[in-house]
Amino acid sequence: MPEFIEITPTAPIVTAAHGWRAKCLQRMIRIDMPVPRTIALPAATVRAIAAGQMVDAVAVLAAFGAGALVSVRPSPQNPEWGGPATVLNIGMNAARHAALIQTHGQAAADALYLRFVQSYATHVARLDPDMFNHLAPKTKNSMAQALDAALAQYEREMEAPFPETAAQQLSEVLRSMARAWEGTTARLLRTAKGAPADAPLGLVVQQMAQGIGQGISGSGVIQFIDPVTGDAQITGRYVSQSQRFDAKAGDSALYLTQDPRGPSLQDIAPDIFAELLQHGRMGRQKMREEMMIEFTIEDGKLAVLDAVKTARSARAGLKIAVDMADEGIISREEAVLRVQPRALSELLHPQVDLRSPRDVLAKGIAASPGAAVGRVVFSSQAAQASAARGEPCILVRRETEPEDIRGMNSAAAIVTERGGVTSHAAVIARGLGLPCVVGASLRVDAKEKSILAGTRSLTEGDIITVDGSTGEVLAGAADMLAPALDGGFQRLLSWADEFRDIGIRANADTPSDATTARQFQAQGIGLCRTEHMFFDEDRLVVMREMIFADTGADRAAALARLLPMQRDDFVQLFEIMAGLPVCIRLFDPPLHEFLPHSREGLRELAEALDKPLSDVIRRAEALAEFNPMLGMRGVRLGVVLPEIYAMQAQAIFEATVELARKGTPVVPEIMIPLVSARREVELVKSHIDAIAAKVRSGSGVAFDFKLGVMVETPRAALRAGDIAQHADFLSFGTNDLTQMTYGLSRDDAGRFMNTYVQQGVFPEDPFHTLDVDGVGELLHIGAQRGRLTRPDLTLSICGEHGGNPESIDFCRRAGFDYVSCSPYRVPLARLASAHLALLDRGDFSTLRYISKS
Amino acid sequence: MPEFIEITPTAPIVTAAHGWRAKCLQRMIRIDMPVPRTIALPAATVRAIAAGQMVDAVAVLAAFGAGALVSVRPSPQNPEWGGPATVLNIGMNAARHAALIQTHGQAAADALYLRFVQSYATHVARLDPDMFNHLAPKTKNSMAQALDAALAQYEREMEAPFPETAAQQLSEVLRSMARAWEGTTARLLRTAKGAPADAPLGLVVQQMAQGIGQGISGSGVIQFIDPVTGDAQITGRYVSQSQRFDAKAGDSALYLTQDPRGPSLQDIAPDIFAELLQHGRMGRQKMREEMMIEFTIEDGKLAVLDAVKTARSARAGLKIAVDMADEGIISREEAVLRVQPRALSELLHPQVDLRSPRDVLAKGIAASPGAAVGRVVFSSQAAQASAARGEPCILVRRETEPEDIRGMNSAAAIVTERGGVTSHAAVIARGLGLPCVVGASLRVDAKEKSILAGTRSLTEGDIITVDGSTGEVLAGAADMLAPALDGGFQRLLSWADEFRDIGIRANADTPSDATTARQFQAQGIGLCRTEHMFFDEDRLVVMREMIFADTGADRAAALARLLPMQRDDFVQLFEIMAGLPVCIRLFDPPLHEFLPHSREGLRELAEALDKPLSDVIRRAEALAEFNPMLGMRGVRLGVVLPEIYAMQAQAIFEATVELARKGTPVVPEIMIPLVSARREVELVKSHIDAIAAKVRSGSGVAFDFKLGVMVETPRAALRAGDIAQHADFLSFGTNDLTQMTYGLSRDDAGRFMNTYVQQGVFPEDPFHTLDVDGVGELLHIGAQRGRLTRPDLTLSICGEHGGNPESIDFCRRAGFDYVSCSPYRVPLARLASAHLALLDRGDFSTLRYISKS
Repeated sequence: MPEFIEITPTAPIVTAAHGWRAKCLQRMIRIDMPVPRTIALPAATVRAIAAGQMVDAVAVLAAFGAGALVSVRPSPQNPEWGGPATVLNIGMNAARHAALIQTHGQAAADALYLRFVQSYATHVARLDPDMFNHLAPKTKNSMAQALDAALAQYEREMEAPFPETAAQQLSEVLRSMARAWEGTTARLLRTAKGAPADAPLGLVVQQMAQGIGQGISGSGVIQFIDPVTGDAQITGRYVSQSQRFDAKAGDSALYLTQDPRGPSLQDIAPDIFAELLQHGRMGRQKMREEMMIEFTIEDGKLAVLDAVKTARSARAGLKIAVDMADEGIISREEAVLRVQPRALSELLHPQVDLRSPRDVLAKGIAASPGAAVGRVVFSSQAAQASAARGEPCILVRRETEPEDIRGMNSAAAIVTERGGVTSHAAVIARGLGLPCVVGASLRVDAKEKSILAGTRSLTEGDIITVDGSTGEVLAGAADMLAPALDGGFQRLLSWADEFRDIGIRANADTPSDATTARQFQAQGIGLCRTEHMFFDEDRLVVMREMIFADTGADRAAALARLLPMQRDDFVQLFEIMAGLPVCIRLFDPPLHEFLPHSREGLRELAEALDKPLSDVIRRAEALAEFNPMLGMRGVRLGVVLPEIYAMQAQAIFEATVELARKGTPVVPEIMIPLVSARREVELVKSHIDAIAAKVRSGSGVAFDFKLGVMVETPRAALRAGDIAQHADFLSFGTNDLTQMTYGLSRDDAGRFMNTYVQQGVFPEDPFHTLDVDGVGELLHIGAQRGRLTRPDLTLSICGEHGGNPESIDFCRRAGFDYVSCSPYRVPLARLASAHLALLDRGDFSTLRYISKS
Repeated sequence: MPEFIEITPTAPIVTAAHGWRAKCLQRMIRIDMPVPRTIALPAATVRAIAAGQMVDAVAVLAAFGAGALVSVRPSPQNPEWGGPATVLNIGMNAARHAALIQTHGQAAADALYLRFVQSYATHVARLDPDMFNHLAPKTKNSMAQALDAALAQYEREMEAPFPETAAQQLSEVLRSMARAWEGTTARLLRTAKGAPADAPLGLVVQQMAQGIGQGISGSGVIQFIDPVTGDAQITGRYVSQSQRFDAKAGDSALYLTQDPRGPSLQDIAPDIFAELLQHGRMGRQKMREEMMIEFTIEDGKLAVLDAVKTARSARAGLKIAVDMADEGIISREEAVLRVQPRALSELLHPQVDLRSPRDVLAKGIAASPGAAVGRVVFSSQAAQASAARGEPCILVRRETEPEDIRGMNSAAAIVTERGGVTSHAAVIARGLGLPCVVGASLRVDAKEKSILAGTRSLTEGDIITVDGSTGEVLAGAADMLAPALDGGFQRLLSWADEFRDIGIRANADTPSDATTARQFQAQGIGLCRTEHMFFDEDRLVVMREMIFADTGADRAAALARLLPMQRDDFVQLFEIMAGLPVCIRLFDPPLHEFLPHSREGLRELAEALDKPLSDVIRRAEALAEFNPMLGMRGVRLGVVLPEIYAMQAQAIFEATVELARKGTPVVPEIMIPLVSARREVELVKSHIDAIAAKVRSGSGVAFDFKLGVMVETPRAALRAGDIAQHADFLSFGTNDLTQMTYGLSRDDAGRFMNTYVQQGVFPEDPFHTLDVDGVGELLHIGAQRGRLTRPDLTLSICGEHGGNPESIDFCRRAGFDYVSCSPYRVPLARLASAHLALLDRGDFSTLRYISKS
C-alpha cells in the first residue's frame, strides 16, 4: 500500500521525494506558522497511484478527524515545474452540506458545495467546464438550485451519481492529479521549464480552513517586496468571505494596508495584520527567503495555508540576494548561487539612447525591457537562419505560438501585432530576457512578408529598433546605450569573482567590443577576429586590390597600405585593454568573402581596379569554392600567401612597440586559425619569429609575444601533442570544431535542426549547447595531449559556446585556463563559473536544486 | 679509419649495408662466375667519406696488386635507387700508360687514358664535359694529341696537374661519388623511386678486365628473356675492342647470336658464348632471378663484371615469377611477393575496341599501353581539379616537366606534342601505368587552351580517347574493351588469394561495375552508391518532381514511380553478384545536385513541372547550400524526408524476394550514410525494419538483411560504441572522413594541395594516401569502440583509399574484415593484401626489400 506521512516539525523528515511544497510547509510549521494539519504523499506513492494502485484514502482522512474538508495541492521538486490544479473542499457531501448549513448558513454551504462539484467535474471527471459555468447562480437565492442542477448535470454526463464519501472523492482526486502529471501537456510544460520529462511529483493533502462564515472570514495573499525592484513594500490581496481570494475584484476585496480609497485588512483586523507581518519577517529570517504567504481567516483566526517564494524580476532577485547577504541572513556564497546566470541577461540589455532622435514606426505595450536593433524577419525559420549567419533579427508576428519558441530564442527582439502583457510573446520574451513590444500599432502580413505601419511599409530584411522598455518600434538602427548596472550587480559579480576558479575573457573585434569587455571586467580578449577590420569601405578597396594583385609585389604594395590601418586597430585595442592579454587571430576567411556578389558590384570593382570586367569575373569565379568552410582559408592562406600574415604580425608588433613606448607593455597573443598539421604552425611561426626579430631590432624595443593555435579541426585536436611543440596556447574554436565533427554546416543546418531536436536525434542543437560526447571528447583529447607535450600550455575555448554554463562546467573539469565569450555574456560567465566552483564544494550541495531551477 | 671488405664466397658476410650490388656480386662469386676481384665499402664508410674522412685508398688498392686498374660502381640498397656514374680505369697514369703501350699497343693505351681523363674531369672534378668532347680524335693517329690536350685542359681548368697516383685518384673518385649521393638531385631522383631521402649507399671497387687488346677482346651485355613478354629469348649487345660495350653501333658491334646479317659472338667464340649461357642458367637457378650479365672478354678470357635483374615490363615480370614458381625455382609465396601490386595496373588497362569506328585526330608514338577516355585539360592544376570532381581527364601538354607529375597522376592518359619514347612524359606514364601518346601530330596552345589537329581544333573539356597501344588520339569517346588477362595473371592472383587474410570487395554502382568486380573476383560489393541510379534522363525527371512535390503525398507518388526502376537496379546487381554480399548505401547527396544549374535548365524544368519559373527558381534557391558537403544530405535527408529511404528499402527487399524466388537467396546489406548520432540509426532502422516486415508478410518470402553505418563524420567514429548497438557493420568512408577531419574540401583543396605537399606541410595528399596519424586514429577509435559493443561487428573501409596497399596494411592491423575499392583496383588489392600477409610471416622478411622496391 503506497505510503504517506503527516508533516510535523520533527520526524518523519520530509524528503525531496515529497516535493518543495511539503518541505516548505514543514519549515513553516517549524517556525510556528499556523498551518492546518497536512499530509504529504511522496513521489513513489504518486507514481503508484498513477500506475493503478491506490493509497488508503480512509487512513489519510483519519488524520484529519471525522467530517473534515481537505484540499490537495501538487508538490513537485521545483515550484516552477507546475503541476495539476489544486482541488479544495474534498469531503463535501450531503451530510457535510447539512452540517455546514448549521455552522455557516445556507448560502455559504451551497456555495462551497457547488464550487466543489464544479471543480471535481472539471478537474477529476474531466467534464467540459462550460456545462457547469452556465449554472452559476445569478443571485444568492438561487444558489441551491444551481447546486442541484450541477449534481444532476454530473450524474447525467457520468451516468453515475456524484461520489458521496470523502474517501471516494479523495481517491479520485489523487488518481486524477497523479495521472495528469504523466500527461503529454504536463510533460511539455515542465520540460520547457527545464525539468526532466520524468520529474517526480509529490502531493500535499491539507485540512481546509474556511474563509467563509461568521466573524472576520476571508482569504488572501501577502508579499513583502516589490517584485520588480526588490525594494521592501507590502502588496497582495485580501477578499473577505472567500476561499483562495477568488472573488472578482471589487466584489468583496479589501486593501491589505491602510488606504484612503477604502477599508483595509490593516484597519479591520490590525492584530491579524500584525501577525501576518510577523510571519513574513520570520519567513525571511528563518526560511531565508522573501515569501508570498497564502492565508485564510476563519472567524477571526488566522491560518497560513501555503507560502511560496515571491515571484520576482531578475533585478529584484539580485537585489534580494545581495540585501540578505548584507544583512547576514545568507552567506555571500549563497547570494551568488541564488542568482541564475541566465537571469543576468535581463539586466544587461542595452537601451535606446534617449538623446538620439526617435523615428517611431509603431507603439504598443512594453512587454519586456531592453532594446535591440535587427533586421525584420517573419518566421521562426528565418530567425534561426539569420542567427546562424550571425545577423541580429527582430521576429515580427501577428502573434506568437509555442512552435515559435526556437525562432524567438534566435531573435534579438520580438514584436507582435496582437496580445497583451500576458500574451505568449510577452511571457516568453521576458523568460528569454528579450526586448518585446506586443499589441503594436502595425499590420503584419507574414505571407507577403510585409508590415504596414501607418502609411509606411516594411519588408523582410529592413532594419528596425525595438524598445521594449517604452513599447516603441523605431525605424532604422537607433543609437544604443549600454545597460546601467547598479551597485548590487557589481557587488554580486565581485563576490562571484572571489569564488570562481576559471578565467573569463571576451571575444572582441572592435574598440566598442573591447570597451564593453572591460566594463564587464573580462580578464582579457580571448578572440579578436581580425578579418572584420577589413570590411570597412576604405579598407575593402585595398583588400580587393590585394586579392586581384597579379604579382607578389603588387600584393605586398596593397598590404603595405593596410599595415598602418591594422596597426592602429591593435594600438586602440591594446590601449583599451590596458595591459590585459589580447589574443589576436590571424586572418581567417576565404578571400572571396571580400568580393562583391552582384554583377553590378563586380562591374564597379572592375572600374575601381581598372581591369576588364571579364578579368574580374574570371578571377572571382576562380576564387569561388564548393565548400568555403572547408576551403582555402585560415592557415592555408597563411602558408600559400604568407604576405598577409606577415603584414598582420608586423602591425601587431609595431603596435606593441608603440604601447611599450607609451608605458603600457603588452604581451600580444597571436593565434593561427584552421590548423590541421604541425608543419603549418612551424611554417607560420618561423615567419612570425623573423618579423618579431625585425621589429625588435628596427625599433630597439624589446617585447615578448605568445604564439598559439586555434583548434577547430578534429585533426588539430587529435594531433595536439605535435602541435603543442610550437604553440604557447591552444584555444578551441568550438563553432568550427562542431561543424567538422558532425560534418554539419551551421549555415545549412537550420533546414533540419528543428526536426532533429524535436525527434530527439540531437538532444540539443550542438551549436547552442556543447556536444560533450563528441566535440567534448576531442576537446579532452586535445587538452590532454597538448599538456602532455607542454605542461604549462594555456588552454581555452573561444567559440560561441564559451559563455554557456554547460561549456564552462566542461572546461573547468578539463582543466582549461579560461573561456572566452561575447562581451555581454561575460557577467553570465563570471557568475556561472562561480556557481560551478561553489557547487563543487560539498557545503552547497543542498542548494543545487536552486541553481538548477 | 672507415672500413671495407673484400668480397669472397664466404666470410666476411656482405651485408645490406654494402648494398645490392655487393650482395649480388657475392652471389655470383659463390656460383663460380668469373668475377674480377672486388672490394665493397659499406654505407658507414661512404657516409664517413662524404663527411670528410677518407678510406685508406692505398690499402684498398693493395688488394688488387701493383699497377692494377679498378672501377668504382654504386651499390645502393635497391638497384632502382640509382647512384653516381661508374668510373672506370682508376689507376691510369703515365707509368701505367707506358706499360699498356707495351701490352695493348699505343692506340689502345691512349684511348684508355683519354677516356679516364675525360671521365675523371667530368665526374670527379665536375668540369664541363664539352671542354673535353671537342678534343676527341678525328683519326686514331691523333689519339695521343687528344690525350695531351685533355691533360693540359684539365691542368688549366683545375690549376693543378692531373692526379698521378692511383691512391689519389681513387680517393677523389670515392669522395666525389659519396658526396654526389648526398646531393639534392640524387635525393630527388631516389625519393621519386620510393627511397627514403637518407637512403644509404655502398660502393664497389672492382679490378678492371680490359676489353681492349690482343686476341678476342671486347665487352657486352646479355639477357635471356624478352623484357616485354617475359618469354625466353637471348638478346643483348657485344662490341669487340670496347669497355662497357660503348662503341657506336655499327662501329665494332657484333651480334650476340648467330645472325644472317653478320658475324656474331656465337660464331667467333662459341665456347665463350656457351659459357655465358651457362652463367645465365646458373643465375636463374641459383640466384633465382632472370639476370642481365655484363661481361668483358680479355684476350679470349671471360670476366663477368656485374649482373642485374633484367629490366622488364610488368607483364614480363609476372610471367617470370609464375614460370619460376612452376619450375620450383621459387615458391608460390615468393612469386606472389615478386610482383608489385602497383605493376598490375599496367596489365589491367582497358583497350580501345578495334571493332569500333576510329575517328583519328592525331598520330604519335605509342609510349605507354592501354587506352582511356576523358576530357581535355591543359594543366596539372586542371587535371587535379578534374580528378577531384571524379571526372576522367586527358592531360595534353606540349611536353611534360617534373612539376607536372601530380597532374599526370590525376589524369587518365597523357598526350604530348613533343618528345620520344624516353621523354619525360613517356617514362612517367609507363611508371604510372597510364596510356600515353608522345610526339603527337597536333599543336598545343596551353595558354589559349586549344589544340589544333590538322584542320580540327579542340578546347578544354572536349572528350577524346587516347590509345597508348597504337599511338593514336581519337575524337570523342571510343568503345572500350576490358583488358585481356591471361592465365598467368589469374594463377598468380589465385595464389595471392590463398595467402591473404583480409577480404576484398569492390565499389560498384552499375551492372557494368559489378560485372568487372566479378571478373576480378571481388568477394562482393562493398559500396553501391544508389544516387547514381537517379541521374538517368527518365529518372531525373521523376526525381525532380519528387524534390518539388508540395505535399508528402505528391512526394510519395513520385517515389512510387521510382520504386520499380530502383528495384530493377538491385535485381540486376544481385543477379550479377550471384549471392555474394552487396552493400547498398542509401541515398546520400543533397537534393540540389539533381536540379539544373543554368537558368535555361530551370526554365525547362518549370515547363516540365508545369509550375511558374519564379516558383522553381525560389525552390532551387531555397535548396542551395553554403557548404553542401556539410549540409542536408545522407541520413539527414533520411530522417527529414523518410519517404526516400522507405522507397529504397522497399526496392531492395522486393529485389531480394525476387532473387529468392529465382533460387538465388541474397542477404542485402543496407548502409546509412553521414551518420553522426546513434539516434539517426535508430530512427532509420525502425523504418526499415517495418518495411522489411511488410515485404516479408506481403510476399510470404522470408529473408534476412544487414543494416550498417557508413562512418564518415569524426563524431560517428568517436561514438561508434553507441552506433554499433544498432549496426551490423561499420564501413569507414575515408573520403568524407578525411575531409571532415582536416576541415578540407577535396573539391577546393586543389588550389593549395601542391604547395602543401611541396612544402612538406602534408607529407602526402591525404586524399591519395590515408592519413594514418589523424584519420587513421579515428578509424582505430571507431573500430575498437564498435567491437567493444559488438564483438562480431563487421568492419571495412570503402573510401577511395580502400585499394591502396598502405590502407590495406592499416586495415589488416586494425582487424578489419574487408576493404572495398574500385573494381579495377581489386586485383591490386588482392595482391597487396597477400604481400602484407606473407611479409608478416617471418620467413619472408628477407624479401621485404623486394616488396618495397
